[in-house]
Amino acid sequence: MTAHRIAVVPGDGIGLEVVPAGVDALRATADRFGLTLEFDVFDFASAAHWQRHGTMLPPDWEETLRRYDAIYFGAVGWPEVVPDHISLWGSLLQIRRTFDQYVNLRPCRLMPGVRSPLAGREPGDIDFVVVRENTEGEYSSIGGRIFEGTDRETVLHETVMTRVGVDRVLRFAFEQAARRPEQHLTSATKSNGISISMPYWDERVAAMKEQFPAVRVDKFHIDALAAQFVLHPERFDVVVASNLFGDILSDLGPACTGTLGIAPSANINPDRAHPSLFEPVHGSAPDIAGRGIANPVGQIWCGSMMLDHLGHPEAAAHLLGAVEDVLALGPAEAPLTPDLHGKGTTAELGEAITTRV
Amino acid sequence: MTAHRIAVVPGDGIGLEVVPAGVDALRATADRFGLTLEFDVFDFASAAHWQRHGTMLPPDWEETLRRYDAIYFGAVGWPEVVPDHISLWGSLLQIRRTFDQYVNLRPCRLMPGVRSPLAGREPGDIDFVVVRENTEGEYSSIGGRIFEGTDRETVLHETVMTRVGVDRVLRFAFEQAARRPEQHLTSATKSNGISISMPYWDERVAAMKEQFPAVRVDKFHIDALAAQFVLHPERFDVVVASNLFGDILSDLGPACTGTLGIAPSANINPDRAHPSLFEPVHGSAPDIAGRGIANPVGQIWCGSMMLDHLGHPEAAAHLLGAVEDVLALGPAEAPLTPDLHGKGTTAELGEAITTRV
Ligand SMILES: CC(C)[C@H](C(=O)O)[C@@H](O)C(=O)O
Ligand SMILES: CC(C)[C@H](C(=O)O)[C@@H](O)C(=O)O
Repeated sequence: MTAHRIAVVPGDGIGLEVVPAGVDALRATADRFGLTLEFDVFDFASAAHWQRHGTMLPPDWEETLRRYDAIYFGAVGWPEVVPDHISLWGSLLQIRRTFDQYVNLRPCRLMPGVRSPLAGREPGDIDFVVVRENTEGEYSSIGGRIFEGTDRETVLHETVMTRVGVDRVLRFAFEQAARRPEQHLTSATKSNGISISMPYWDERVAAMKEQFPAVRVDKFHIDALAAQFVLHPERFDVVVASNLFGDILSDLGPACTGTLGIAPSANINPDRAHPSLFEPVHGSAPDIAGRGIANPVGQIWCGSMMLDHLGHPEAAAHLLGAVEDVLALGPAEAPLTPDLHGKGTTAELGEAITTRV
Repeated sequence: MTAHRIAVVPGDGIGLEVVPAGVDALRATADRFGLTLEFDVFDFASAAHWQRHGTMLPPDWEETLRRYDAIYFGAVGWPEVVPDHISLWGSLLQIRRTFDQYVNLRPCRLMPGVRSPLAGREPGDIDFVVVRENTEGEYSSIGGRIFEGTDRETVLHETVMTRVGVDRVLRFAFEQAARRPEQHLTSATKSNGISISMPYWDERVAAMKEQFPAVRVDKFHIDALAAQFVLHPERFDVVVASNLFGDILSDLGPACTGTLGIAPSANINPDRAHPSLFEPVHGSAPDIAGRGIANPVGQIWCGSMMLDHLGHPEAAAHLLGAVEDVLALGPAEAPLTPDLHGKGTTAELGEAITTRV
């Protein structure tokens, strides 16, 4: 059995707390399935690295990370030390772009044992996946200021969409939809108001649809779609969205399934020309960092997505099954964290899942 | 008592159905309070106008509407006949900009008798207002395409923020917050990812805050904020947002309070140099148009906001009180529309409210 080399980047805040739980669960799964995972831990992409070096990443980060089969990432961002747009563009967003991780795949599922904030929703009612464009669009970092400091001060910020960039993520999303029983794809747009970039997005969706006649396609403006997530989350199967809209929907979706703490994401280069990166949706969460109460489920579920990406779907399913089994026990029987209405710690919940594996 | 001249623009789809109910309720309120409201109805800003004239608005629309004290607007958009970005930029969005209606005020309240999709929420739990920038930002219509039809096809779309534009809406929002008991303002941002325009927004919020020391200010990235609306809607008082973020939040908020059908909005020029425009949040809703089941409450609540703007706060409060009284009866006692879990029609619910006035 080949060994997989994993770069572990805990980052900041609760990233440092949930990553160890995630690594333990991965080790246990690897043991059970006879896989060899080799972990190397890096302390860059963190405020600590910024304080020591004045940069978020070392100069050779690209060669370093390129040697690995996957990147197991925690969270980055510590605004007390370094403004978010500097820390993020200096690390995570740069990695996504450099390694051309053009798909950000974010499953959104109401799990057994987890209470939805939506009235009357049961596990199984909500189960969709957001396919987010991950390298261009509204996240362009092109633009600037003119007449600074005066009343004429004007700021421009460019959204950039390319045919290559839009079509490849749409193709991925259509393929996902085609593989699922419902074969239903929803496109997030805002072509009524954002009248240059979003009509283009709609056109490309219409063009791609021709190649996937079996997939049922609908589209919603992002405002209406956000409302639909709350009113009718059961209606969605695969949702494809631009970088910004995907960002919003992939926080809103998990909120509807109870907590951001369980939501995973896979930043994938589907062409496998570069390593992919697996990180929970929740971020560094300065408000609860350092208290040992962060939910490790998002990070552990990321491990499952990573195993799947590395070619081990059974191990991936087993790990996710262990997560589901422990969650299903509910806060009375399992050491669930406070966001899951329990009293457990990160370590306790992580251990319960690892034991279950 | 001076007369107020109101331009009535029903527009498209359910706009044509809910506006008459709104006008009836306004007439009844005016009678009760001894006010004179003069209504003139216009058929532009509609697909019908487009079909006849090839434009959404007549050439003299600006002089025409300028003669009125306020514009009572239904909804516009009928994509079967004219693409949304053409119909909207040719009407509503142009009016907002030409009349410099730089504040879009969107109250969001869980009303008695209305069932929230959020578990365990009672009337009073959710009561905040979204202050949306309404003339610039992401809604710029500047940009274009290069290398059209080739693999190099690239689309640029400019976000434009000006100091004047950002500061005036922030000032309005701070003033609103300062007048409310909680004095709490939440700013929607995305400065970690949208790294040129949104850090500028944050800077201006920080600068304006100096002038309102009593207002407690916090900020959330739009992704996290969308999640918070679902998880903790009780935490919000006044929310200020850019054009796009405000658009999203002001659909998501009403969804959390049960239905978009009740949500009103006021497109205001606070300097009163131009007429303001009052329109429900819901839009033309092609899916239910023509069936007579659209909820008229959003349109009627708009009438209340318009009366307030015209200097009649008591009449405004009375009209909104009538709406609340009828809603509070619930679907068993009042002819509530299907979105409110009732079997009533637009006309029946409108009549019930007008009678109550
Ligand atoms: C119809 C559309 C252009 C409009 C907007 O995006 O402003 C609508 O959604 C609104 O919220 O008033
Ligand atoms: C931290 C931030 C820049 C990032 C993003 O906006 O992509 C995060 O919200 C995410 O969803 O991964």
